[in-house]
Amino acid sequence: MRVRVGIVGASGYTGAELVRLVLGHPELELGYLGAREKAGQRLGEALPGTEGIAGLSDRRLEAFEPGAASELRGRIDVAFTALPHAASARAGAALLEAGIRVVDLSADFRLADAAVYEEWYGEHPAKALLAQAVYGLPELHRAELRGARLIAAPGCYPTSSILPLAPLLSAKLIEPSGIVIDSKSGVSGAGRSAAANTHFPETSEGMRAYKVAGTHRHLPEIEQELSRAAKTPITVVFTPHLAPFSRGILTTAYARARAGTTAEQCRDAAEGQYREGLVTVLRDGRLPDTLWVRGSARAHVAYALDERAGVVVAMCAIDNLAKGASAQAIQALNVCLGHPDALGLPQVGTFP
Amino acid sequence: MRVRVGIVGASGYTGAELVRLVLGHPELELGYLGAREKAGQRLGEALPGTEGIAGLSDRRLEAFEPGAASELRGRIDVAFTALPHAASARAGAALLEAGIRVVDLSADFRLADAAVYEEWYGEHPAKALLAQAVYGLPELHRAELRGARLIAAPGCYPTSSILPLAPLLSAKLIEPSGIVIDSKSGVSGAGRSAAANTHFPETSEGMRAYKVAGTHRHLPEIEQELSRAAKTPITVVFTPHLAPFSRGILTTAYARARAGTTAEQCRDAAEGQYREGLVTVLRDGRLPDTLWVRGSARAHVAYALDERAGVVVAMCAIDNLAKGASAQAIQALNVCLGHPDALGLPQVGTFP
Amino acid sequence: MRVRVGIVGASGYTGAELVRLVLGHPELELGYLGAREKAGQRLGEALPGTEGIAGLSDRRLEAFEPGAASELRGRIDVAFTALPHAASARAGAALLEAGIRVVDLSADFRLADAAVYEEWYGEHPAKALLAQAVYGLPELHRAELRGARLIAAPGCYPTSSILPLAPLLSAKLIEPSGIVIDSKSGVSGAGRSAAANTHFPETSEGMRAYKVAGTHRHLPEIEQELSRAAKTPITVVFTPHLAPFSRGILTTAYARARAGTTAEQCRDAAEGQYREGLVTVLRDGRLPDTLWVRGSARAHVAYALDERAGVVVAMCAIDNLAKGASAQAIQALNVCLGHPDALGLPQVGTFP
Amino acid sequence: MRVRVGIVGASGYTGAELVRLVLGHPELELGYLGAREKAGQRLGEALPGTEGIAGLSDRRLEAFEPGAASELRGRIDVAFTALPHAASARAGAALLEAGIRVVDLSADFRLADAAVYEEWYGEHPAKALLAQAVYGLPELHRAELRGARLIAAPGCYPTSSILPLAPLLSAKLIEPSGIVIDSKSGVSGAGRSAAANTHFPETSEGMRAYKVAGTHRHLPEIEQELSRAAKTPITVVFTPHLAPFSRGILTTAYARARAGTTAEQCRDAAEGQYREGLVTVLRDGRLPDTLWVRGSARAHVAYALDERAGVVVAMCAIDNLAKGASAQAIQALNVCLGHPDALGLPQVGTFP
Repeated sequence: MRVRVGIVGASGYTGAELVRLVLGHPELELGYLGAREKAGQRLGEALPGTEGIAGLSDRRLEAFEPGAASELRGRIDVAFTALPHAASARAGAALLEAGIRVVDLSADFRLADAAVYEEWYGEHPAKALLAQAVYGLPELHRAELRGARLIAAPGCYPTSSILPLAPLLSAKLIEPSGIVIDSKSGVSGAGRSAAANTHFPETSEGMRAYKVAGTHRHLPEIEQELSRAAKTPITVVFTPHLAPFSRGILTTAYARARAGTTAEQCRDAAEGQYREGLVTVLRDGRLPDTLWVRGSARAHVAYALDERAGVVVAMCAIDNLAKGASAQAIQALNVCLGHPDALGLPQVGTFP
Repeated sequence: MRVRVGIVGASGYTGAELVRLVLGHPELELGYLGAREKAGQRLGEALPGTEGIAGLSDRRLEAFEPGAASELRGRIDVAFTALPHAASARAGAALLEAGIRVVDLSADFRLADAAVYEEWYGEHPAKALLAQAVYGLPELHRAELRGARLIAAPGCYPTSSILPLAPLLSAKLIEPSGIVIDSKSGVSGAGRSAAANTHFPETSEGMRAYKVAGTHRHLPEIEQELSRAAKTPITVVFTPHLAPFSRGILTTAYARARAGTTAEQCRDAAEGQYREGLVTVLRDGRLPDTLWVRGSARAHVAYALDERAGVVVAMCAIDNLAKGASAQAIQALNVCLGHPDALGLPQVGTFP
Repeated sequence: MRVRVGIVGASGYTGAELVRLVLGHPELELGYLGAREKAGQRLGEALPGTEGIAGLSDRRLEAFEPGAASELRGRIDVAFTALPHAASARAGAALLEAGIRVVDLSADFRLADAAVYEEWYGEHPAKALLAQAVYGLPELHRAELRGARLIAAPGCYPTSSILPLAPLLSAKLIEPSGIVIDSKSGVSGAGRSAAANTHFPETSEGMRAYKVAGTHRHLPEIEQELSRAAKTPITVVFTPHLAPFSRGILTTAYARARAGTTAEQCRDAAEGQYREGLVTVLRDGRLPDTLWVRGSARAHVAYALDERAGVVVAMCAIDNLAKGASAQAIQALNVCLGHPDALGLPQVGTFP
Repeated sequence: MRVRVGIVGASGYTGAELVRLVLGHPELELGYLGAREKAGQRLGEALPGTEGIAGLSDRRLEAFEPGAASELRGRIDVAFTALPHAASARAGAALLEAGIRVVDLSADFRLADAAVYEEWYGEHPAKALLAQAVYGLPELHRAELRGARLIAAPGCYPTSSILPLAPLLSAKLIEPSGIVIDSKSGVSGAGRSAAANTHFPETSEGMRAYKVAGTHRHLPEIEQELSRAAKTPITVVFTPHLAPFSRGILTTAYARARAGTTAEQCRDAAEGQYREGLVTVLRDGRLPDTLWVRGSARAHVAYALDERAGVVVAMCAIDNLAKGASAQAIQALNVCLGHPDALGLPQVGTFP
């Protein structure tokens, strides 16, 4: 029998991507579609790409209220919650309470330390749950994911930052201090709400940094996971950029090489770490390109050593909505349920 | 047992799209990958998006020679041929001879009249096969496709032009003369070879018509199918345009309304025609947008009536590589093999 | 002594383009910058591209109130009004009253017939002025522009539609009935306010028609000018499209050729009409491309004859903010003041 | 009397930009247009944006041969050479020999040390001239530029890297070791020749690093100028990226702050350095965006201090073809000739 899933926040970008991916998954079926502003709309109205598909486009987006989560008991087995922070935690808490497994795509359950959360996001509405939440990066938290009731799907910038760096820190190939992470994101990362800085004419020929110098909310999440990998506290410089494309993040990270480190050792460390999972380690001088992972659940990583400077350049390309959000959430659920990571997920993206 | 398919021309855009779609299809498996310039390369080299996928990226693109087609007997049941015209016909002829079913994605088997073909493309290398080729638009040629040995997958412009107009001609809602078809294509329609007119800096802010006034090779294909639908010879004005996006075609067609024709009648005629198949008829004033069909096997059509001028505006959006090429080729094969049209095909595209 | 100009609505796209162009004009100087929502801001804040330029970035956007227009007497000689419709008319009326010449970039003074205006836009706040307003397309209204006190700068779609068709109608090379105009606009035509349909991720791979079948407000303006050229009432089918680029409009128009009409006659008619002005007639099979007019005050037109169908294909590319708005407004002012059309205007755009 | 300039390599992107800028310059006039592959073409053919402009589009691109440079004596006073490396040096040498002032836009005269040049580019055809060449970054080499006979216009990446960092090094606000420069370039930086990696469909949704880890040819130029500013040898890590837009470079550089350094000190140092010239120092948390300098001769720089990490983030946005190439070449000529830097140059770009 297939697992019935609900998507709370189905009309946003991560929600829409979940709809696409769940439809292609042999063991999942859509049991519930929840929304907030668009509640009451037909799915075909909120996501016209579904229009005309029998059994899909006429389904209604239901108004999700945490107080009524118990009514979903029996309708769904798993809920993907993709709401703004705090709202997502409240939804997740109510769903868990109703006996429904939760994969949360907001930031609400990613940070183990409530104090850190509150520094960046304000009060946490469900602090007590942090202890049981598993950080849903299957390549690093495989064992904990099996059977988990509450999974915190990682952020897009963190995914693209942690994947290339964690194996180098674990293997002590780079110094834990002085790491610089320079990330370039497509515009879908900003979400579906229109705003001046994502208005087409002011985006299509623009390239810009934002939230520089330690002010972006994904910073503590990156540092938490890199610290875990390094087994020592890590502080990084992180700069997000907005680039004129829709989907994808390219991260270029810089770290001081330990004495004797080679690029080949970096590749080997990553391959060792990523024997299971959905990470490709590029070789032979090939470098990641968001072009190649668009719509795909895979990440591409690569390494180069700048010998003059003694710096490792670690790069990673993902689709921010796929491996950086919805596909990774399903990958984590796959692992949780005992399936292969890739079950039902597109590994080859749409090219071009 | 799954049907084993070969892709001849696997490194071009339609070939790459076939790889993606075959991998997601439950009844098909990849039995052969053929190429010309890239023969000998690993698939991961030709299509880096496949890199790191076990069992896929290390497969080699084999040099396809029509003379050696018989060696594929036993390895594959169906071949998708996606080569330049004439080369594709030669490949198809050899494969058919070897007992392999052929779905050809070039123009070589689309025109029933060899004389018309030769006017536009030069000598036809396998004229005798034209009689058995079925035009692979399942919504219009469903019955002929069942069990067909040679399927000519339609062109992208023709698909987007025929789908909105054919039902109106069949139902005599528009005049057969004076039809104007204005199509806007994304750049992937020009293929994977780099050229001055597809160089990013000279494309990204450019919008242009080309091959105007009856000089584009897709014209006879459009006219053949519209004439079949109208049961009378049709001459159209067709203008292709290149627009700065990768995937998709939007076609806006103009036809004189017959007396009394309403937009609602047009929608009803299309819905009647497209009860089976992968065409969505939009209602309530919604208009097609390539945004919504990107990566999807579906077409979206819509109609409006300009009452002042007595003109029906018929619109259609497709993904040129999906419904306009590779997904439609698989849809036609599905019908040929007795499967539902949509089997294994993505109906919801990647959004955004 | 240079002419002092004011820009009312300086922070929108046409206002910003006016700032750029006035700064490059040897006979104009910026005497006043007015705005509404951004009133009070430094220009460097509203238009960061001006930041750091001495004497410019620190100027304030002043709150424009029609009631206080008389205070601008003595500060400026000419006002460019670029406000939403109705507001623009009120501004223009007040400025004229204050003895200031007005070049209005809204739709408010373009339609000679107040009844037609009110059908499309609602009540006109300054109907009495319509009689003295001159339609600011210098290539067609040169004589009336000399010394005009009130100039209505044409809309972007109308400019790109009228320029290729008017000479053919004047010369009776095409039939006046059955004309179809299919226009593709860049996104800056939608203005500077962010909206869902101009949000980058939902625009960058989208191509769509909108306001089809006689529902776009630029229709009456197009028909007014084509009727003047044809000396007979003209009804057209007009379809605007939004395409994923920032600046430019490409219009492809279709008209039935009169017996004997050749493409060469069309080119000759246009060249005759456009001996003066800023319109290039392309020859030798070259077709217009928005790429080539980006940032330029020129329009490119071309013609082809589809002999099978007896249809003239008339094409035009402009920069919607330059020849389609602000540069044309200055061109009209140049003619009004007795200067050459091109004075101070960029004729070569930014390429690429 | 105006200075007559020649452009050798007029049909490439920097050449086309020179044409645009020279036409807008009150003290320069176009005396000669030279080309290689496109020699013999009308300018209107090579650059259709000039088509229809009297006195311009019908001018011929002349075949430039260094051996015949003396024939240009008397026709032009200054030559801009914009050819591939080595060819440009040969052209420059011949033109200087003919008594013509040279502003070279290739890499040939930028590196003071011939050995360094030859390590990156192969043999230098005019080594003896290196001693007299002035690096044409007016903000740093103002005095040397006055009256210079041979000016080496800086590269685009170097301009965007040197401008934000040089003042910090001069003022000893950052450590000279450990600097990381992460640059994101638009595609026009790759030149006008079509190639697989600049083919629209493989660029428009792609974001990628290339020539990583000390392998890009602009590296020695960056290090030369930063070393001059620091008065000590500097080694940097430099990563160029290709991003999907046409014009512009955004550089984000990272350097360890000296004890006590504040962001305000960085801004003050830059403002002090750039009191003359075309560099805007942004304040109040505003960050550079290529959007705002498109088509403009200005650079925008900004600074932030990451206090947790002790790292200064120094950012710069330029138009790679304007301040990063042709506009800067003219700015350098302006300074050379005793004009203000900005004479005839657009300081406000095209927005949007």
